[in-house]
Amino acid sequence: MKFYDCQPAPSPRRVRMMIAEKGIAVDKIEVDLRNGEHLKDWFRRINPRSEVPVLELDDGTVITESVAIYRYLEEIQPEPALMGRTPKEKAVIAMWDHKVEIEGFFAVAEVLRNTAKGFAGRAITGPQSYAQIPELAERGRRRVTEFMQTLDARLAHSRYLGGDQFSVADISGVVVVDFAGWIKATIPDDCLHLKRWHEEVSARPSAKL
Amino acid sequence: MKFYDCQPAPSPRRVRMMIAEKGIAVDKIEVDLRNGEHLKDWFRRINPRSEVPVLELDDGTVITESVAIYRYLEEIQPEPALMGRTPKEKAVIAMWDHKVEIEGFFAVAEVLRNTAKGFAGRAITGPQSYAQIPELAERGRRRVTEFMQTLDARLAHSRYLGGDQFSVADISGVVVVDFAGWIKATIPDDCLHLKRWHEEVSARPSAKL
Repeated sequence: MKFYDCQPAPSPRRVRMMIAEKGIAVDKIEVDLRNGEHLKDWFRRINPRSEVPVLELDDGTVITESVAIYRYLEEIQPEPALMGRTPKEKAVIAMWDHKVEIEGFFAVAEVLRNTAKGFAGRAITGPQSYAQIPELAERGRRRVTEFMQTLDARLAHSRYLGGDQFSVADISGVVVVDFAGWIKATIPDDCLHLKRWHEEVSARPSAKL
Repeated sequence: MKFYDCQPAPSPRRVRMMIAEKGIAVDKIEVDLRNGEHLKDWFRRINPRSEVPVLELDDGTVITESVAIYRYLEEIQPEPALMGRTPKEKAVIAMWDHKVEIEGFFAVAEVLRNTAKGFAGRAITGPQSYAQIPELAERGRRRVTEFMQTLDARLAHSRYLGGDQFSVADISGVVVVDFAGWIKATIPDDCLHLKRWHEEVSARPSAKL
């Protein structure tokens, strides 16, 4: 099983953390996004969208999308369970994982990709060229703040995002909160629950890889 | 179990189709988005994001996010399986379902919400007001075309999006292709595989609800 990773990028870090939490053996291949390795023919043959993470199974099947890779890894190695045990747990974790991605990750990415010089002409992931729309940055910053407040409100009543147990929602969450640092968005001072949770999750060995 | 639906909206249609495919009994509550029912206090107490679909379990747990509702329904009623049986099937279906949502649904929504008069000040779902950014519409239209081409390429080699079997990826897919009609984006003439699949999926009784 091959895992196409990129050390500095946020999305592959989600998969890296899950692999570490479960202790799964993979062949890791570093794709150097900063030097445009993902846009080269060899990688586009694997993923035409030029995105990491990618999991390539031994039979050649290519799995893209972090959430799909989460699902595969949970299925082949159920313990420790990171996507819930009961129908309700599974749904609540899937809900928070999705909210983190849509309300958090995409908001941060919207700011970054529409302002950073390095993303000029690449405002959307993938091989197609899309011009930056600077107006999106302001909107994205507002959304990032709202996202942090949403997490804080959840964590006022729950140890982890998905409930009592650490889950993929926490992995996605810590990745996105750290990714917000790229646009210099930090946890608001009054989000004490989010701070408590961020410290706890960041202390896990898997968060340091 | 209560299902908060809205007949004309795309996302709750995903859940409506799955419920019909599985023959699950739910209490259906129509939320009239066009008259702003989702922004009223009673509904915001259920979902502070003011979005449908929502599934409210008998113990009061609220599940938002279509993908999380899919997961819950599949767990409580495994047959007919709509999210795969093997780890690989589950991952491939999750991958296509996610691609449909990110590359398709959000692209259509980007066009619609940033141009339609009815969405002025509501360019993003939820209770917060966000101004429209008309520049997004042009970008969104390009993305919708690319999305249809991506589906067509997949369907050239596969009967359904997730493989040999009908799955939630097809439900999400037909909902998004039909949603594209709202912005007058139709299946490109040369996307014959996508047309074949769209006809087949649209003929299912669940697609007509």
